[in-house]
Amino acid sequence: MAKAWALASRPQGMPVEANFELIDLPHRALADGEVRVANRWLSVDPYMRGRMNDVKSYVPPYALGEPMQGGAVGEVIESRADGIAAGDRVLHMEGWRDEAVVAAAALQKLPQLGVSDQAFLGQLGMPGMTAYFGLLAVAEAKAGDTVFVSAAAGAVGSTVVQIAKAKGMTVIGSAGGAEKGAWVTSLGADAVVDYKAEKDLVRALGKAAPNGIDVYFDNVGGDHLDAALAVANERARFALCGMIDIYNDTRPTGLRYLARAIGARIRMQGFIVIDFFPRMDEFYRDMAGLLQAGKLDARETIHDGLEAMPRAFLDLFSGGNTGKMLIRL
Amino acid sequence: MAKAWALASRPQGMPVEANFELIDLPHRALADGEVRVANRWLSVDPYMRGRMNDVKSYVPPYALGEPMQGGAVGEVIESRADGIAAGDRVLHMEGWRDEAVVAAAALQKLPQLGVSDQAFLGQLGMPGMTAYFGLLAVAEAKAGDTVFVSAAAGAVGSTVVQIAKAKGMTVIGSAGGAEKGAWVTSLGADAVVDYKAEKDLVRALGKAAPNGIDVYFDNVGGDHLDAALAVANERARFALCGMIDIYNDTRPTGLRYLARAIGARIRMQGFIVIDFFPRMDEFYRDMAGLLQAGKLDARETIHDGLEAMPRAFLDLFSGGNTGKMLIRL
Repeated sequence: MAKAWALASRPQGMPVEANFELIDLPHRALADGEVRVANRWLSVDPYMRGRMNDVKSYVPPYALGEPMQGGAVGEVIESRADGIAAGDRVLHMEGWRDEAVVAAAALQKLPQLGVSDQAFLGQLGMPGMTAYFGLLAVAEAKAGDTVFVSAAAGAVGSTVVQIAKAKGMTVIGSAGGAEKGAWVTSLGADAVVDYKAEKDLVRALGKAAPNGIDVYFDNVGGDHLDAALAVANERARFALCGMIDIYNDTRPTGLRYLARAIGARIRMQGFIVIDFFPRMDEFYRDMAGLLQAGKLDARETIHDGLEAMPRAFLDLFSGGNTGKMLIRL
Repeated sequence: MAKAWALASRPQGMPVEANFELIDLPHRALADGEVRVANRWLSVDPYMRGRMNDVKSYVPPYALGEPMQGGAVGEVIESRADGIAAGDRVLHMEGWRDEAVVAAAALQKLPQLGVSDQAFLGQLGMPGMTAYFGLLAVAEAKAGDTVFVSAAAGAVGSTVVQIAKAKGMTVIGSAGGAEKGAWVTSLGADAVVDYKAEKDLVRALGKAAPNGIDVYFDNVGGDHLDAALAVANERARFALCGMIDIYNDTRPTGLRYLARAIGARIRMQGFIVIDFFPRMDEFYRDMAGLLQAGKLDARETIHDGLEAMPRAFLDLFSGGNTGKMLIRL
């Protein structure tokens, strides 16, 4: 019988494994226009933390006792939808489970770009689009800019580093620990700040960016955002993408350098990737070019089996992943 | 002998009167292209606090022991500059003193707009330009928007309220105390939040703006900014103009609602008015129209005599002014 992770209880602060429960999914016959998918890859993403809270947001909260959702790639094993046949590989949002019934309108067949299936959950999927449009559209980064990106060893951050280098920017990444830092350097970053080793992030960033920064791609919030405010050049643009630091934290974010936003005319702009879905063709075209030119390296942190998913999710918040975090079924 | 206020010492946190000293200004003969001005009105502004610190900013810090600067309006009493004659009334930046020697290139004759001389230090001067361009250009506020403005009884804030109402917006202002609140209401504000009476600014603003806010004009920072983040609608635009709350405070700004900037796609943009000097004609034209239509009420808090200036300046930080704070000589 198919199984799925359901939300057993809402976390206060950092989630724990007891917030999740594995439930049976009763088998049901397909309706017209539906397909049955055997999931092969499940996406594990920081934004899912927000859906565990019972608050209105851009995506609805997970319902207690119900199967959770998230990105997934799988193989169609039964179809009652025109144009979709058993064997097709598809991307959809019914993750956190090993088998899903999905309406044809809510899935897409994987584009033929010569990449792995799971790349459509990473560099060629939402994390990649987030990196691409956050850097180029929201922050309006251009050749010659100095870009600072936090969580640079993450799925989004590592893609930001590589797009920025491919487009002629100077890049400083933050990452926790020497191993991740070495990988970020290998991706082309001009400097890396090890936030776990540095006591004073403002000083460390100032040293790594002696000419200041023009763009900050924020995946973290908190001290990283404050350090970016401290060293930002005039008219710097910040793309606010994620604040993993505060997802599990009920304390306020303390910013010592916020007033610099005024004199330095800093722009901070929040965004979510779904706003850019109408420009997906542009993204695929440009990223496929970078891939074929050998300018995109991807790393994955893979855990096997549905049972491993809550643990993998919790690992996101202690820096337990390099690159995209995935469950393989 | 002419006198001026000099910076005696740099304040730590809130300034005190001992940070200022009244010094004699030695008389000197005019060089070619210079004029001597008997100042009549001196501008007292929150931004001057920043210049008391020894930090690089968009305006240089005041030098220890030297006369301070600031906006001033006066009458020319001696001229060696072409086109400027004794009796001309001029606007310049050699304030904090009763008499000034000014290069002709560093002053402007008062435009003939049928307003008081001191209006060119207020609604028709930098505070007015700050309000005008901050609201309309930086925050891109338009008819139908709901605008929240902090320090709405201040020189900038009260002008924001009136421009916004004249342009068809709904306006919520914050002000400290019933008397200031009543004035802000009389200016046309649809609701007023008394930040001194309210324990919970988020709740108070949420009640005053049941449909959320589209624009926040920030003169205050801190709790006001946090409350604006809490109730902002999707794609809200914040113009970060001043943070009087933190000018004298070395504690970090604590923001509980910063992560809303992501999901709600909020834009926070710092600005300073000098960037808009090239558009001064547009400002004079539009504001003169509002004035002639009777849509701009101004209030002034006036202290008499040069000696009163440090006290008046300190009063800014405890809400001691309604409208523009001025020294009359």
